[in-house]
Amino acid sequence: MSLESDCDAPDFRTIAIIGVGLIGGSIAAAIRQRKQAATVIGVGRDSSRLAKAQQSGLIDEAATDLGSVAERSDLLIFCTPVDRIVAGVREAAKRARPGMLITDAGSVKGTICRELATGLPAGVEFVGSHPLAGSEKQGFEHADPQLFAGRICVMTPTPTTKPGTVARIARFWQNLGAVAVEMTPEDHDRALAQTSHLPHVVAAALAAMIGPEYIGRLAATGFRDTTRIASGDPDLWTAILLANVEPVLAELQKYEESLTAFRQGLIARDAARVKELLATAKARRDRIFAGIQ
Amino acid sequence: MSLESDCDAPDFRTIAIIGVGLIGGSIAAAIRQRKQAATVIGVGRDSSRLAKAQQSGLIDEAATDLGSVAERSDLLIFCTPVDRIVAGVREAAKRARPGMLITDAGSVKGTICRELATGLPAGVEFVGSHPLAGSEKQGFEHADPQLFAGRICVMTPTPTTKPGTVARIARFWQNLGAVAVEMTPEDHDRALAQTSHLPHVVAAALAAMIGPEYIGRLAATGFRDTTRIASGDPDLWTAILLANVEPVLAELQKYEESLTAFRQGLIARDAARVKELLATAKARRDRIFAGIQ
Repeated sequence: MSLESDCDAPDFRTIAIIGVGLIGGSIAAAIRQRKQAATVIGVGRDSSRLAKAQQSGLIDEAATDLGSVAERSDLLIFCTPVDRIVAGVREAAKRARPGMLITDAGSVKGTICRELATGLPAGVEFVGSHPLAGSEKQGFEHADPQLFAGRICVMTPTPTTKPGTVARIARFWQNLGAVAVEMTPEDHDRALAQTSHLPHVVAAALAAMIGPEYIGRLAATGFRDTTRIASGDPDLWTAILLANVEPVLAELQKYEESLTAFRQGLIARDAARVKELLATAKARRDRIFAGIQ
Repeated sequence: MSLESDCDAPDFRTIAIIGVGLIGGSIAAAIRQRKQAATVIGVGRDSSRLAKAQQSGLIDEAATDLGSVAERSDLLIFCTPVDRIVAGVREAAKRARPGMLITDAGSVKGTICRELATGLPAGVEFVGSHPLAGSEKQGFEHADPQLFAGRICVMTPTPTTKPGTVARIARFWQNLGAVAVEMTPEDHDRALAQTSHLPHVVAAALAAMIGPEYIGRLAATGFRDTTRIASGDPDLWTAILLANVEPVLAELQKYEESLTAFRQGLIARDAARVKELLATAKARRDRIFAGIQ
């Protein structure tokens, strides 16, 4: 099979997904729908959950022993919480065949990519990935083979990553419908602190202060949407925020300054100033989401 | 027609809607779909826009002269920006027939209801309403006759409002599909400061600080939803926020304290504390929106 002649042909015969939740399950569903592997193995700790994922047709095989799966896979994709990725990759890499690639779907890249840039066995490479798609819903029951269609997937190679490896991983994501882009792990983490991690804190801080039931009853669509991501898994998000503390704190400071500008405008009853702030917010948001609602 | 024998029968023959935008247009559409008036008159300043609303079948008649419309209407509903409601009601009331009712759909009630509790001609009554439904979209082109179905509509009578008047306005909203509840104007404003006005500031402050285009490209659904309401009309929202400054500032202070708790947890790298804050946020939000996404 020539990879150059047909970019849609599968590059990997056996792909293992470690952590078959919403993201891992959606990757499995997309791989099968788009025929990007002969075999998809789901790896996890809860064999009854994995059996259900297999029964639902998301994965071909279910396994709880990462080492033996690593021995017979061509690509491993870690979809576990971000604080478990480094240890999992090191464990799998010990048993990997030369030429095996490893990537992940974690929302934070700096720590993971720095730690895994060295110390893996010869012939085994790790490249970080982050598909910008998700949901506050959890579990493979909500898996969606179209979850990545048209979405950006950021890949974060380090100076030691071989260019050919990045190209293969990029093609894999493209074949699932994503738009693959490259950034350094540090640039990725600064950007995501602003577009994802800070918004999570902003939404959660708002949901956390909601008052008695009678006030909750008066919450309409605006409150619902502004706080939607606050319904995400607290464990997952604790791990994400703690893996990216400095960039998140830097964005939080900018956010608090932005809030202060609104507060000062309101205290001064300065209609022109409040309107200017609201107009800036609307213009910046509308520019990003032009045509999307 | 006996009002007691059939609560779905229309109580008002001619209803005028002042301000035919998204909310006014949706009220018109709901009245016509549910046959709650023989004639719906749309009143505004832009006759070409009103002509389009009439052509689209939303309203029966278009008018720019509020006084002459007031003379022949049984119910006036002010859907103008909140800073224009008091003056509009006073102008219309001068020409009203005895027995005419006036309500509104404004998002802030204290100032409006206090000012209109006195000084209207004998036989003309104003009761404030706030249907908790909306959209960041603008214009009658987005009008939806189902916008109020299942939504709460808060009515804010004052001590001088006759109980029979509140009952008639409540039935009107119920007949459009809404759930009518009563609150004092002050309780309404404090509650909405928390569930609507503060969330608008929170979302706008986040949208206002979004960085260069390349970061905007990395904004996924979380950022999109958290900032959705920031795309609302800056003029409308300036008027709302400035009509409810003290309650909004009180909620903003609580919000800044909530953010501070997250900041301190992050600075201390205190995973247990961050998780506790996220879990509280999730629990409170999930309790409000159980079954709704």
